[in-house]
Amino acid sequence: MSLDPTETGHLPSHNEYFQLKDKDVWSLINETAAQTEKETGVKMVHLGQGFYSYSPPDFAIEEAKKALDIAMVNQYAPTRGRMSLIDALSKTYSHYYDHALEPSEIMVSTGANEGILSCFFGFLNPGDEVIVFEPFFDQYISNIEMAGGKVVYVQIHAPKDFNENIVSGKDWTIDPQELESAISSKTKMIVLNTPQNPLGKVFTREELTMIGNLAVKHNLLVVSDEVYENLYYVPDRVRIHTISPEIDERCLVVGSSGKTFAATGWRIGWVIGNKALINYVAAAHTRICFSSPGPMQEAVAGALLRAKDNGYYEKSRAAFVNKYKIFTSVFDYLGLPYTKAEGGYYLYVNFHKLQIPDNYVFPDLFLKSRDFQLAYWLIKEIGVVSIPPSEFYISEHKAEAKDCLRFAICKQDEVLQEAVKRLKKLKPFVGNRTNQ
Amino acid sequence: MSLDPTETGHLPSHNEYFQLKDKDVWSLINETAAQTEKETGVKMVHLGQGFYSYSPPDFAIEEAKKALDIAMVNQYAPTRGRMSLIDALSKTYSHYYDHALEPSEIMVSTGANEGILSCFFGFLNPGDEVIVFEPFFDQYISNIEMAGGKVVYVQIHAPKDFNENIVSGKDWTIDPQELESAISSKTKMIVLNTPQNPLGKVFTREELTMIGNLAVKHNLLVVSDEVYENLYYVPDRVRIHTISPEIDERCLVVGSSGKTFAATGWRIGWVIGNKALINYVAAAHTRICFSSPGPMQEAVAGALLRAKDNGYYEKSRAAFVNKYKIFTSVFDYLGLPYTKAEGGYYLYVNFHKLQIPDNYVFPDLFLKSRDFQLAYWLIKEIGVVSIPPSEFYISEHKAEAKDCLRFAICKQDEVLQEAVKRLKKLKPFVGNRTNQ
Repeated sequence: MSLDPTETGHLPSHNEYFQLKDKDVWSLINETAAQTEKETGVKMVHLGQGFYSYSPPDFAIEEAKKALDIAMVNQYAPTRGRMSLIDALSKTYSHYYDHALEPSEIMVSTGANEGILSCFFGFLNPGDEVIVFEPFFDQYISNIEMAGGKVVYVQIHAPKDFNENIVSGKDWTIDPQELESAISSKTKMIVLNTPQNPLGKVFTREELTMIGNLAVKHNLLVVSDEVYENLYYVPDRVRIHTISPEIDERCLVVGSSGKTFAATGWRIGWVIGNKALINYVAAAHTRICFSSPGPMQEAVAGALLRAKDNGYYEKSRAAFVNKYKIFTSVFDYLGLPYTKAEGGYYLYVNFHKLQIPDNYVFPDLFLKSRDFQLAYWLIKEIGVVSIPPSEFYISEHKAEAKDCLRFAICKQDEVLQEAVKRLKKLKPFVGNRTNQ
Repeated sequence: MSLDPTETGHLPSHNEYFQLKDKDVWSLINETAAQTEKETGVKMVHLGQGFYSYSPPDFAIEEAKKALDIAMVNQYAPTRGRMSLIDALSKTYSHYYDHALEPSEIMVSTGANEGILSCFFGFLNPGDEVIVFEPFFDQYISNIEMAGGKVVYVQIHAPKDFNENIVSGKDWTIDPQELESAISSKTKMIVLNTPQNPLGKVFTREELTMIGNLAVKHNLLVVSDEVYENLYYVPDRVRIHTISPEIDERCLVVGSSGKTFAATGWRIGWVIGNKALINYVAAAHTRICFSSPGPMQEAVAGALLRAKDNGYYEKSRAAFVNKYKIFTSVFDYLGLPYTKAEGGYYLYVNFHKLQIPDNYVFPDLFLKSRDFQLAYWLIKEIGVVSIPPSEFYISEHKAEAKDCLRFAICKQDEVLQEAVKRLKKLKPFVGNRTNQ
């Protein structure tokens, strides 16, 4: 076939939603890191994308291998999920409810992402509005828009002293009046993420009560993305649906085996909620992915049952407390403030005090915001990969994140120790900033 | 939580697209079969849904188990697919092209289904029309509509003598004038499925040339669903993109590991085509599923490389030729005509001559068409499960399929032999039909 495949101006036009003008932040950062590695021979320390640098626990891998030996596990699963997994999810979550969860209250999705997309497709009619807190996980936005919805943003306000002082998740706050005034007659849904990506904030009972009660008052659904649910470092982690029956009946709670079992590539998530709501989530899911990977479902079913009493969750949390200890030490040393994570596996660091050399030259794609320049500079100069979080803000608010970077710490301790060693080299650049 | 979860009339309304009035045919048939099995104790012979009754080949299972031992295989794959799989796909398909396929021409999807959905989302703007041949795989319809497209149907006409005589795939024909007059200024795409589900038709070079040239003339894309590509029983199976460079540049060709390796539950498919087109398919896919299951991708990569020279494809085809031989024998015995399959793994049988006892009572859900009654009767009376194909026709044309049933023969030979034994019991009911 001899036509130049790039000459397609004469072919039918694409969906106008996909402009492909800008590279998404994930590809931009990953490709820049790979290119730099190739050019310099320096192996990158990857703390950008939130994948684990290590395997799922042995007991989960064992379950996966066992699953492959069952003929029917390799065939289409029921669209709502394999019975074994639905049963394991019921056993895992029923204690949060006043009854044993029935299969009709549970739907397995192809990753939490597709579960959330199914919530949007199940409920949004053209023009419906969805409230998303900012900074946000960027995938929510396109998922809402593809389903015909309109995103309405409500800010999680940064603590005023974040340029100078270490803060904690609870210092990032929502203004209840701002939230309520963002609600219109077209609002159908609030999307919540706790523990929150990228801040590591765990929403408090008071905050969740406020949000849940507004959802009841204005008759909204709540899509509660709780994929980091098992990684929390504060005593009180509240599931919003447990606050009251009126809140519960409107909640769709999303979980993830990828985050729970260090298996982000397995693509098994789930949505739990009111069965009348789940019906519509499942109708959408059936049309999006039809069914989710059988062997991975069976593996997660087995792993959930074993994790109930093998101490896995406690060990994971303890391991992550230690990872944060290792990694935050370098920012203490540098005097750069960060948000102490209450949950999840990210560290949100403020580089306001860091001075990039004045004459440093950046490629065009990194000129758009100082956080992109910070991320670029760290890749090029010390071989540490992070994510510029202005991508998690709308245009008008990107400046809020211009001094910050998000680091994923779901990595082996040695990887974090190497990152610490490299980041220490920033010491001479801290505290003398002139180009504010 | 004490509210009755079925009382949700007061909660926000669902997406109007999902009415949930009718059960989809797959759930209706599967649930009826399960219920009957429970009531009668008779184990059903499942020839309904197109899942294999047996495992993927040992070499594929081996590759899957090996994959699970690689830490990074268990983490997010690149959104367009793991390099190992893209490389294996390039090695598998490049001989159909005039160059070695580049990674930019290949996208891995979460099952062929999600690959096709990504084609629709990548290109359809609201109001765009898509031509689908009828009878159709029902998932196309909702996938097009969810992406904002409008389906325009073009019939594959049944051979006139199909009530009396055995026919073959090529006897089912498209009228070129009907196809061209279905094309409007809004048409963006033609969806093709060869080998075709449910007919088992393999489109001929002449038919594909006609379709491809119309796509060129009217500047349309062609989404060619070739998931049954390795199961063909005629000498000449043509890939439409190979017909001319002008056709090639507008083709998105979809493949499936589920169909190729008897692994319908693995959810790994792929889309191959012009890289400028694949960019948009990938943009949509990234927003739908983000990435596809890593261990399953790695397994398919290994399996594709091993299948290149271990005789797997030839053995599969020979096995299916034998399965058709086993299964068609009973319809020869009964004198019921069928469409000789040229490819795929379905048998499309005409029960026009079969008399269901006049006083037989059907539940409401099965009253809508005679093929639903036939399917119900076979489940209840002889324990054989099939699919009523009027579901693959629009309302105005459902009568075309009222006498037919689709049987999936991707089952062990013993299963097919048992089906034959049971279907023989229909002999007294053939040929005396009074209730036409």
